[in-house]
Amino acid sequence: MVRTILVVGAGKSTSYLLDYLLKKSTEEQLRLIIGDLRPENIPGEIASHPNCDVIQLDILNDDARKKAIEVSSLVISMLPPRMHIKIAQDCIVYKKHLVTASYVSKEIEALDAEAKKNGLVFMNEIGLDPGIDHMSAMEVIDRIRDKGGKMLLFESFTGGLVAPENDSNLWSYKFTWNPRNVVVAAQGGAAKFIQEGSYKYIPYQKIFRRTELVEIEGYGDFEVYPNRDSLKYREAYGLEDALTLFRGTMRRVGFSKAWHIFVMLGMTDDTYVVENSEGMSYREFVNLFLPYSPTDSVELKLRHYLKIDQDDIRWGKLLELNLFDDSKKIPLKNATPAQMLQYILEDSWTLNPDEKDMIVMYHKFGYELDGKKKQLDANMVVLGENQTFTAMAKTVGLPVAMAALQILNKKIVTPGVQIPIAKEVYRPILEELKSYGIHFNEYQVPYLGYNPDSIGN
Amino acid sequence: MVRTILVVGAGKSTSYLLDYLLKKSTEEQLRLIIGDLRPENIPGEIASHPNCDVIQLDILNDDARKKAIEVSSLVISMLPPRMHIKIAQDCIVYKKHLVTASYVSKEIEALDAEAKKNGLVFMNEIGLDPGIDHMSAMEVIDRIRDKGGKMLLFESFTGGLVAPENDSNLWSYKFTWNPRNVVVAAQGGAAKFIQEGSYKYIPYQKIFRRTELVEIEGYGDFEVYPNRDSLKYREAYGLEDALTLFRGTMRRVGFSKAWHIFVMLGMTDDTYVVENSEGMSYREFVNLFLPYSPTDSVELKLRHYLKIDQDDIRWGKLLELNLFDDSKKIPLKNATPAQMLQYILEDSWTLNPDEKDMIVMYHKFGYELDGKKKQLDANMVVLGENQTFTAMAKTVGLPVAMAALQILNKKIVTPGVQIPIAKEVYRPILEELKSYGIHFNEYQVPYLGYNPDSIGN
Repeated sequence: MVRTILVVGAGKSTSYLLDYLLKKSTEEQLRLIIGDLRPENIPGEIASHPNCDVIQLDILNDDARKKAIEVSSLVISMLPPRMHIKIAQDCIVYKKHLVTASYVSKEIEALDAEAKKNGLVFMNEIGLDPGIDHMSAMEVIDRIRDKGGKMLLFESFTGGLVAPENDSNLWSYKFTWNPRNVVVAAQGGAAKFIQEGSYKYIPYQKIFRRTELVEIEGYGDFEVYPNRDSLKYREAYGLEDALTLFRGTMRRVGFSKAWHIFVMLGMTDDTYVVENSEGMSYREFVNLFLPYSPTDSVELKLRHYLKIDQDDIRWGKLLELNLFDDSKKIPLKNATPAQMLQYILEDSWTLNPDEKDMIVMYHKFGYELDGKKKQLDANMVVLGENQTFTAMAKTVGLPVAMAALQILNKKIVTPGVQIPIAKEVYRPILEELKSYGIHFNEYQVPYLGYNPDSIGN
Repeated sequence: MVRTILVVGAGKSTSYLLDYLLKKSTEEQLRLIIGDLRPENIPGEIASHPNCDVIQLDILNDDARKKAIEVSSLVISMLPPRMHIKIAQDCIVYKKHLVTASYVSKEIEALDAEAKKNGLVFMNEIGLDPGIDHMSAMEVIDRIRDKGGKMLLFESFTGGLVAPENDSNLWSYKFTWNPRNVVVAAQGGAAKFIQEGSYKYIPYQKIFRRTELVEIEGYGDFEVYPNRDSLKYREAYGLEDALTLFRGTMRRVGFSKAWHIFVMLGMTDDTYVVENSEGMSYREFVNLFLPYSPTDSVELKLRHYLKIDQDDIRWGKLLELNLFDDSKKIPLKNATPAQMLQYILEDSWTLNPDEKDMIVMYHKFGYELDGKKKQLDANMVVLGENQTFTAMAKTVGLPVAMAALQILNKKIVTPGVQIPIAKEVYRPILEELKSYGIHFNEYQVPYLGYNPDSIGN
């Protein structure tokens, strides 16, 4: 019997997702309907696949949306998170399973009882982060517990970076995903985590100065700055008694210390509009945040203001972005500082067509087993193939696609609104991901309980 | 004919206000009704005055409020700003004048047409700051304009401090007004101002490092940190063409650089609740914001984190607050960092019963006259007499009381929602304030257009 999967939203994260499902479509008797507001953007080799139909779908058009959902067996929503709810509500009405890579919102959470009553799997947070982080972490945590171990420490870091062969600028960074999220990262409240049983708080103005260092064999050193939400999955993972819980974002070493310059200048602020932003030069933009002087240069004012020595390696990073260029202009009208900074960064940090991205993930698991404290570190590196088949699209799209198929094949059956932390879910998916080169290397290391390199300076 | 003034809210800022009105009451045929939620707190010498009635008044009780307003000729509201609107609406209904020391809210502003139609004066922002700053600034600006001068620069600073004779701690600071406002000062958005025609923006994380210095003859040096709202009265003052507009808060030199430590640690954050705040020691509070270490001291971690040398004069300021004391506890349940910091500061910064406060105000007026650029600086110092008759109560209360009487005596007659920037208002009030020792000293100084000492470091 043919099963129909409706994929709503075919953005740049769906290359692997669609490829996976279409390759399996004949053997698994799948029919794919891709509903998108702009179907003309969908590549010809996908649109012309015999098991695929492409429809123009405006998700705000109730009739069209309901009709598309009604004829499907399962819906995958790759839309922006706030747009999932209408689809989820229809999935309840028409009794369809739902898969998304997004965080569970309160609105979606509220459908849990209805989903359970109707035997529907509403799987969320099954992309990269959130997604592969949940599954890979729970796989190790369950393994430790099954041996009788007691969890003491859990740290988890993810980063979207450029592949080593394209690591060619002083920041070791280019945008491989949503640039805006990078510019406003860590804003909106203090970061909260626990270290050795003590709660710790870091305000935005210090986030990028409280990094810790990790190494991935064969890929060198990385740094981690704290996420705001280190305690978010404490209960979900059953880590109520763990002494250390810390989640963070990975960058190449030196990125955060230089980014801190933007934070302290106020360039990442997205809460107000700059007067006369349109046509402002990069240099004028920098000068907005520096004291007036009739004689002193923008360069010297900045160095003095932030105490940047003449031989500080961050200076080259600023020059590389043409920050002091008076001929480069920002064309944005009524823009916030964050929007203007994003424009300047995109000017330098956009991947060339032949450049590839890289996803890195790093977990630390500290535990007590047989009276001894131990630590297991696990890490994953995924490289992109090209600008369509990126590491980001692969790590977000494949788990979503695999979960959809497992649900249709009744391998994942537990109903309700959920994230992929149950063995039923993560075991088959992690196993299948290995055959696509997505796997973790594990290392037994001495248990320390804290990171001596993590003191901010 | 006796005129009745209803004073709503008899808090600590009303000593001079009530005293002034009662002293004038016989000669001016005034009857005072003081309406307060807790009338028992009103001093006996006021409550027993023959021209004064004290009533228990819950402002949320519509009947009681309307009744009290109906029998009055004019209402003075000294309540918290958000509570003015109900009174203002009743003042429209019963056709009564209104005086407050608070900022004009949108709700109050919306009553302008109604107030005008009924010939009612709704005078706001007629305390200290806002209040005396408006009046004293407009007096000079109008004087410059009347001579044919063109305004180039306006800077205005106010501070509430301790009197020099009680300036006995390392911060040269104690709370003389609402401590909470001091702890959360400058939060909620970047400071915006203009210097020599250029817009300038300072984020919260740098506000207390962008001070400028001013001297008041006989009182020594002060520093100024920027307010968020330097452009707020640009149109009201007619300063659309001025090249420099800057408003700030005055402290004794060195306060801001030390306060910046609290900002960078994250101790002033009022947006989240600290886990287990109740019973936490001052030392544990500090350690919340520092990295974990099994061996390093809180002191050394803080010094390293914020690069504080062993001979930095800020260190003594921290010790004076007992910040590293493990025996001093914070009793607050579910408290934010800002609330906990406030508790620690109040422990050190509360005025003794015999200590006095001081109000300082400083204006700079840059202008062009007869083809020459000139600058006039004006400053005011007011000292408190004791803890009831404070400089704050004097500078807030007297202008309010004087405005009320001027309105009743039909010296201030222009109706509508307004602030005291018209000659009709500021002339008689500034003149009368002089006889209470509230006056400005003026100095002609060279025009510079910017402050060479204002570069942050």
